[in-house]
Amino acid sequence: MMFDKIHEECGVFGIFDDSGINAAESAYYALYALQHRGQESCGIAVNDSGTIRIAGDSGLVSEVFTEDAIKNLAAGCASIGHVRYGVFSTAAKEELQPLLVTHVKGKFALCNNGSLSNYKELREQLELNGFIFHTESDAELISGMLIHEMLESSCLEDALLRIMAKMEGAYSLLIMTDDRLIAVRDPWGFRPLCIGRTSGGYAFASESCALDSIHADFLRDVAPGEIVTAGKTGISSITAFCDLKQTALCIFEYIYFSRPDSVVDGVSVHHTRHKAGQFLAEDYPTEADVVIGVPDSGIDAAIGYSAASGIPYGLGFVKNKYIGRTFIQPNLADREDKVRIKLNPMKNVVKGKRVVLVDDSIVRGTTCGRIVRLLRQAGAAEVHLRVSSPPFLHPCYFGTDIDSEEKLIAHKHSKEEIGKLLDADSIEFLRADRLEDMAKGCRLGFCTGCFTGKYPCYIPK
Amino acid sequence: MMFDKIHEECGVFGIFDDSGINAAESAYYALYALQHRGQESCGIAVNDSGTIRIAGDSGLVSEVFTEDAIKNLAAGCASIGHVRYGVFSTAAKEELQPLLVTHVKGKFALCNNGSLSNYKELREQLELNGFIFHTESDAELISGMLIHEMLESSCLEDALLRIMAKMEGAYSLLIMTDDRLIAVRDPWGFRPLCIGRTSGGYAFASESCALDSIHADFLRDVAPGEIVTAGKTGISSITAFCDLKQTALCIFEYIYFSRPDSVVDGVSVHHTRHKAGQFLAEDYPTEADVVIGVPDSGIDAAIGYSAASGIPYGLGFVKNKYIGRTFIQPNLADREDKVRIKLNPMKNVVKGKRVVLVDDSIVRGTTCGRIVRLLRQAGAAEVHLRVSSPPFLHPCYFGTDIDSEEKLIAHKHSKEEIGKLLDADSIEFLRADRLEDMAKGCRLGFCTGCFTGKYPCYIPK
Amino acid sequence: MMFDKIHEECGVFGIFDDSGINAAESAYYALYALQHRGQESCGIAVNDSGTIRIAGDSGLVSEVFTEDAIKNLAAGCASIGHVRYGVFSTAAKEELQPLLVTHVKGKFALCNNGSLSNYKELREQLELNGFIFHTESDAELISGMLIHEMLESSCLEDALLRIMAKMEGAYSLLIMTDDRLIAVRDPWGFRPLCIGRTSGGYAFASESCALDSIHADFLRDVAPGEIVTAGKTGISSITAFCDLKQTALCIFEYIYFSRPDSVVDGVSVHHTRHKAGQFLAEDYPTEADVVIGVPDSGIDAAIGYSAASGIPYGLGFVKNKYIGRTFIQPNLADREDKVRIKLNPMKNVVKGKRVVLVDDSIVRGTTCGRIVRLLRQAGAAEVHLRVSSPPFLHPCYFGTDIDSEEKLIAHKHSKEEIGKLLDADSIEFLRADRLEDMAKGCRLGFCTGCFTGKYPCYIPK
Amino acid sequence: MMFDKIHEECGVFGIFDDSGINAAESAYYALYALQHRGQESCGIAVNDSGTIRIAGDSGLVSEVFTEDAIKNLAAGCASIGHVRYGVFSTAAKEELQPLLVTHVKGKFALCNNGSLSNYKELREQLELNGFIFHTESDAELISGMLIHEMLESSCLEDALLRIMAKMEGAYSLLIMTDDRLIAVRDPWGFRPLCIGRTSGGYAFASESCALDSIHADFLRDVAPGEIVTAGKTGISSITAFCDLKQTALCIFEYIYFSRPDSVVDGVSVHHTRHKAGQFLAEDYPTEADVVIGVPDSGIDAAIGYSAASGIPYGLGFVKNKYIGRTFIQPNLADREDKVRIKLNPMKNVVKGKRVVLVDDSIVRGTTCGRIVRLLRQAGAAEVHLRVSSPPFLHPCYFGTDIDSEEKLIAHKHSKEEIGKLLDADSIEFLRADRLEDMAKGCRLGFCTGCFTGKYPCYIPK
Repeated sequence: MMFDKIHEECGVFGIFDDSGINAAESAYYALYALQHRGQESCGIAVNDSGTIRIAGDSGLVSEVFTEDAIKNLAAGCASIGHVRYGVFSTAAKEELQPLLVTHVKGKFALCNNGSLSNYKELREQLELNGFIFHTESDAELISGMLIHEMLESSCLEDALLRIMAKMEGAYSLLIMTDDRLIAVRDPWGFRPLCIGRTSGGYAFASESCALDSIHADFLRDVAPGEIVTAGKTGISSITAFCDLKQTALCIFEYIYFSRPDSVVDGVSVHHTRHKAGQFLAEDYPTEADVVIGVPDSGIDAAIGYSAASGIPYGLGFVKNKYIGRTFIQPNLADREDKVRIKLNPMKNVVKGKRVVLVDDSIVRGTTCGRIVRLLRQAGAAEVHLRVSSPPFLHPCYFGTDIDSEEKLIAHKHSKEEIGKLLDADSIEFLRADRLEDMAKGCRLGFCTGCFTGKYPCYIPK
Repeated sequence: MMFDKIHEECGVFGIFDDSGINAAESAYYALYALQHRGQESCGIAVNDSGTIRIAGDSGLVSEVFTEDAIKNLAAGCASIGHVRYGVFSTAAKEELQPLLVTHVKGKFALCNNGSLSNYKELREQLELNGFIFHTESDAELISGMLIHEMLESSCLEDALLRIMAKMEGAYSLLIMTDDRLIAVRDPWGFRPLCIGRTSGGYAFASESCALDSIHADFLRDVAPGEIVTAGKTGISSITAFCDLKQTALCIFEYIYFSRPDSVVDGVSVHHTRHKAGQFLAEDYPTEADVVIGVPDSGIDAAIGYSAASGIPYGLGFVKNKYIGRTFIQPNLADREDKVRIKLNPMKNVVKGKRVVLVDDSIVRGTTCGRIVRLLRQAGAAEVHLRVSSPPFLHPCYFGTDIDSEEKLIAHKHSKEEIGKLLDADSIEFLRADRLEDMAKGCRLGFCTGCFTGKYPCYIPK
Repeated sequence: MMFDKIHEECGVFGIFDDSGINAAESAYYALYALQHRGQESCGIAVNDSGTIRIAGDSGLVSEVFTEDAIKNLAAGCASIGHVRYGVFSTAAKEELQPLLVTHVKGKFALCNNGSLSNYKELREQLELNGFIFHTESDAELISGMLIHEMLESSCLEDALLRIMAKMEGAYSLLIMTDDRLIAVRDPWGFRPLCIGRTSGGYAFASESCALDSIHADFLRDVAPGEIVTAGKTGISSITAFCDLKQTALCIFEYIYFSRPDSVVDGVSVHHTRHKAGQFLAEDYPTEADVVIGVPDSGIDAAIGYSAASGIPYGLGFVKNKYIGRTFIQPNLADREDKVRIKLNPMKNVVKGKRVVLVDDSIVRGTTCGRIVRLLRQAGAAEVHLRVSSPPFLHPCYFGTDIDSEEKLIAHKHSKEEIGKLLDADSIEFLRADRLEDMAKGCRLGFCTGCFTGKYPCYIPK
Repeated sequence: MMFDKIHEECGVFGIFDDSGINAAESAYYALYALQHRGQESCGIAVNDSGTIRIAGDSGLVSEVFTEDAIKNLAAGCASIGHVRYGVFSTAAKEELQPLLVTHVKGKFALCNNGSLSNYKELREQLELNGFIFHTESDAELISGMLIHEMLESSCLEDALLRIMAKMEGAYSLLIMTDDRLIAVRDPWGFRPLCIGRTSGGYAFASESCALDSIHADFLRDVAPGEIVTAGKTGISSITAFCDLKQTALCIFEYIYFSRPDSVVDGVSVHHTRHKAGQFLAEDYPTEADVVIGVPDSGIDAAIGYSAASGIPYGLGFVKNKYIGRTFIQPNLADREDKVRIKLNPMKNVVKGKRVVLVDDSIVRGTTCGRIVRLLRQAGAAEVHLRVSSPPFLHPCYFGTDIDSEEKLIAHKHSKEEIGKLLDADSIEFLRADRLEDMAKGCRLGFCTGCFTGKYPCYIPK
């Protein structure tokens, strides 16, 4: 990947609607809308009158699911689907989800968004019972635990309650059996999961933009610790643990992961970013001629900054949209080229100007520094960097790819040092105490472990 | 294609630099920057110490040219490359450019951007001399004419002058021989073509953004009717016909075809679009709460409109960027879905608002109407459509895909009817007399045939 | 498949030799030699200094293993490999072998030739312990049973002895750990498995022709019920059960499955077929002008028939060797075409002649009948069909694809009826009492269940 | 290629039958039967009610023409097809045939088997008329010449007569226009070409085995110098030049190129090979125990040798039939492996025996020497090599790949030296004066240039 950003693991979608829909097609459009949550691989499982068919591969949704592939899955009354960014370096194909489980105690397909922080301990326990793992995915671990509990449980929901008592960390699960669809969100509510109403049933998705794409009406979010079951008789719900734990939605869902047009746990994602831009303008007033955003994730906050400061908003870059994973890295002389190939600064907009450059976050800082230098080469008189999140200081254990503080520029350097390293005339970050206000109206508390080092549940040693 | 836009045929690039560059790699990055001018196929020819190697296929630059493909072409001191949108319905592979000509009178590679309006007449003449055509491309016709003239010419440039006297219409040609690179622009200057200086030689490109991508400095545009030769001894130039004809740069290069960060014949493309937005605001003042642009081509003018009117600029849509040619068309109920899958309106931004929607042009009008309706469904109180070009009334014969007026909504309907058809509360087009001012500073006259029906040269009956 | 033959499930190969060989390459050549035992998919696992790498896909050995694929596997000191014909209709990819097992109790790769007749019972037992199956392969079942036993076993060999006590049916297993290679043959000896000595170690293969292909010297066959371990200190062996059971080598290994140049359990395969031809000539003398064989499996017996009878041997057919799985079935008028496309009779050889046609076996009889008719159309005066095995009357449960008697022509019709159905002037089968003499010198008894209906172990109801 | 054989360039097929056939499918089966004449690429052109569609690619017929590919070609009333071995090292795709010519003077598809010996002179002539060549194929040259003549000819047949007067060398041409199919054989008759009658029309093919594959009845061969036209009104014929030249059928069509089941110019190919074996037995009597043939091309002659000598015929080798062009060359120690991987000697058949080994021809001798050594390693007591053609001494200019005498072992060594080099106990070649008798009944004279150095027409300097 060219741009150094934090990456989310996955996105999930499911639908149960026996009014004659094409559940394979619904999953296709919904996953296409969730593609930003994972571009490495994707999969769909369809319930076709009790027979579960599954298809998937590494690649984008539009590459993997040709018209024939969708037809082969059959229409069906229910489906679940998954897009995936690969946190671990294992082969994408083996880690494909949904996972299909065929067992004397029942058949189901399962997919998951999140990461268990006590994976290692739970896996060893299962292996010592004779279980053989084929992958290193949480989805397989959860399937194995479920089957073990089902040997002595009355139903799947019952087994789920038992394993939820053991699992630490983030999971937003969808499980499809031959007669229903079950959605589960971990008791902390790390990852988003919402419910929509379709013409004849219900849909679940990581983000509401997926509901929009299939014309489903947003109903509500799945609550932390809630098990929601959709079937022929409608939906029912069991909630557990929610009084025992403090909720901890990942704040980066607002800052970077989710799509601006999604509404997560009651708040518009675009709105939070717009507000983060406003706060930056209010907290750190700057004399400048133009405000520009780093495409695409800095644009919302840049417009907010412009609105609050009165400094005109401008198009700072043209981003080459013909991205493909096959794109060859340039061998040209200087390293700015790696960015320049994708992002060409608009000389006419920045030449001789004092520029406010808004970015959503700084991880390693490499890309951001190159972007600042591109602006200078294009003739910018001053570059004032404004970051719409606090400094990123600590690793994450709940489904992103920042597993060590060594990779974080803010862990090793002060604000002033970062500004110098990135060649900016000034640099400011969103104040941590602004986060709550930024997402005002959100029904959950936040996990801010990456800013504070305080995590809401067990973390591995 | 999902969005009904006018389409340009091609983009070209060439480089001659014997200071040790990798000419295959340069062509790769330059074509990647020109990808917006043609996504159907692409090709590169490299001069490796006198041996011309050629490679290409249907597909995007980043798909066709893998690292191995670039290596197989060899580094070389010169190259030419081509991206292509298919105007004709023939097989993409047969029409691949550059074209390699191996003949007892010499070997050269050739590629072209444009369309000859007297193709049919010229082809028949050649066939009656015993020539067999393998394709319907202008490039093959021009190659055949060149070879015929070369049988009695002292040099390639001489033969070029002779055939330029016969050819009517648009062509921006690049010809690479074993010892030099020749660039030719038709006497009307229909299509852009510019010259850049590299560390040890010269480069030619349809647009200056391609020069940026390889760190070449913009030198000047190739003049209408000019033949520029780059070789070991530098560049030389012959200009002919330019006093005989009136220049006629395609105005759509500013309105839609070229990339905003390119400078065409002396004028910034972004700047012309920004100004078109300003003019719309000045000529047709509107009471509204927010200005939004249709991504991506309406964004520049929307920002201009906002700046001139004082109405705040907003993000109206999220555009799904995971586009692929394999994307399946939805079978869902209403036709708005075909647009909605790619473009989700931001409810928070438009709900209850009076919206100014800026689009760059209207061809059939189908997409635009759907976009207006999406805004209404998202809760927009009013939608005022502003189009940053005059009504499109007549076909084009010079390298675009609008070959019949039957396809044009403005040919059949009045402005008021169009507004009603597209469900807009009001609609206004850029005034035709604003075009010249919009591109103020351009050194050439314009072809405005599509607006006026007056064409600067021969057109087929 | 075009020709109706009985199909064998698989072939296996393994090598352990730490004298600096390339174990991936050895497996490649050996599997290429075993390709006739399975053309649907193939796989290789290599032990590269304790790391086990695995590769495979559906397709032929020469298609799946490109030069890069072999290099990626790394050289290694040990490998096992597998070719597969798909008995079950599940997706080929999921059933790929070798299977890699990564478990807290150890890591190993495993592959198998054979079929367990009590699969269903053993699987259910394991599922009720919480095991989840991903495939329907015996290999996965055996892996799961092994892991369960290993939780309380001192070593893999010990666990193997325990599970061998439970498994009924055919299995020739190869198991590769980080430090050794284990070969196991079921107590009945259904499928062949032999040992070769390489320059610095040992190899195991389903047939001796695979040893020839890598220059290994044939050492001996693995005995029924034997566990042979090859490691750095040489080979060692445990034999169990062999006194409890009667040995039962599949007689079809001689009749059809094995390659003519292999020596199975002490007897040359070509030799047995040649003798079967001789016996047919002796037992059923016929007046004829020429003896021809159905390519390729009837050729050996035809030459034997010619030698014993004195009737000249002739080339009866040209077989098109450009076979590919992509070959399209013809839609032409009569059904003989399906055979004719691959097999063109030599008119000059058979026209006006009394022909003895030798085939190795008759299953459905469809192909054989078409071949007889092709000979008649080519002008044969008489066609006398001689089959070098007894009538095929009962299904097989030990690794072939004849799972029902419904598919067998001999189950429903008398010899005379078959002759008529196949349009032969006369038909004779090898006498069942000739089988033992045919394979004289073989150290094992035979399973002749398909001829007699008497099976040597448990069969499913 | 592993085995050093002389290679033929191509095979052609055409059909005209307006009784409702599927001409694409007919071409498919016929080319499949002609696959032995060229495995590098293949192509089919179909006349679908006057529209000519064309398809093809590098690869085998069964790989290139999937069911969809055949359907896309449409049924049609006429087709021509081509299989190709690549004599020149140019890219296979550019040299694909049939070639489609679209010209103001008419549209036709053309394919060819053969090689013009005055190609260079004819090409230069055309280039100096302004023609541009895209390939180095005879087919393109012939097309260009045809078009030049058609500018002043009354019809295609007339133009053909004119160019036949200029062309030297081998050509068996098929030309398909919108209303007829024309077959042309060069005046010497170098390459075979025969006519078949179908249910409602006529077919042409390089060999009669292709007629068998589509149920066409063999009618007669096209005569040297004959132009045969098949159309709605039946067939007509013009014959020219046949009295001016001596006919010169390539003798290697009998020895090696053609399929044994074909009848070429009146004689069965199998029969000629069988007779060559007989002659070897009669001319060079040998004491031996078994006669074996090198698969597949030495088998026919070996059976003939056995019949004439009374020495029993045996299966000497098992040939691995899973051939694919992707097969990796072994890196194993000794070079015999390159042959052994494909050809395993039958130890039981040759051990301790005096063996007569029959091969059809010796070019470089490399493979043959390895085969002899494999037999010795397998225990053969003596190996007597018998070659069913005379020593190969001179290059060929008429469509095979032996373009220099440097590659020929017999050019540099005496018979005795060759025997020693190949490690044979004795070696004998077919006597040159036996050739005529071998193909007794053939209506044409022979080109024996490769044995005698005397060529029947112009050869390049």
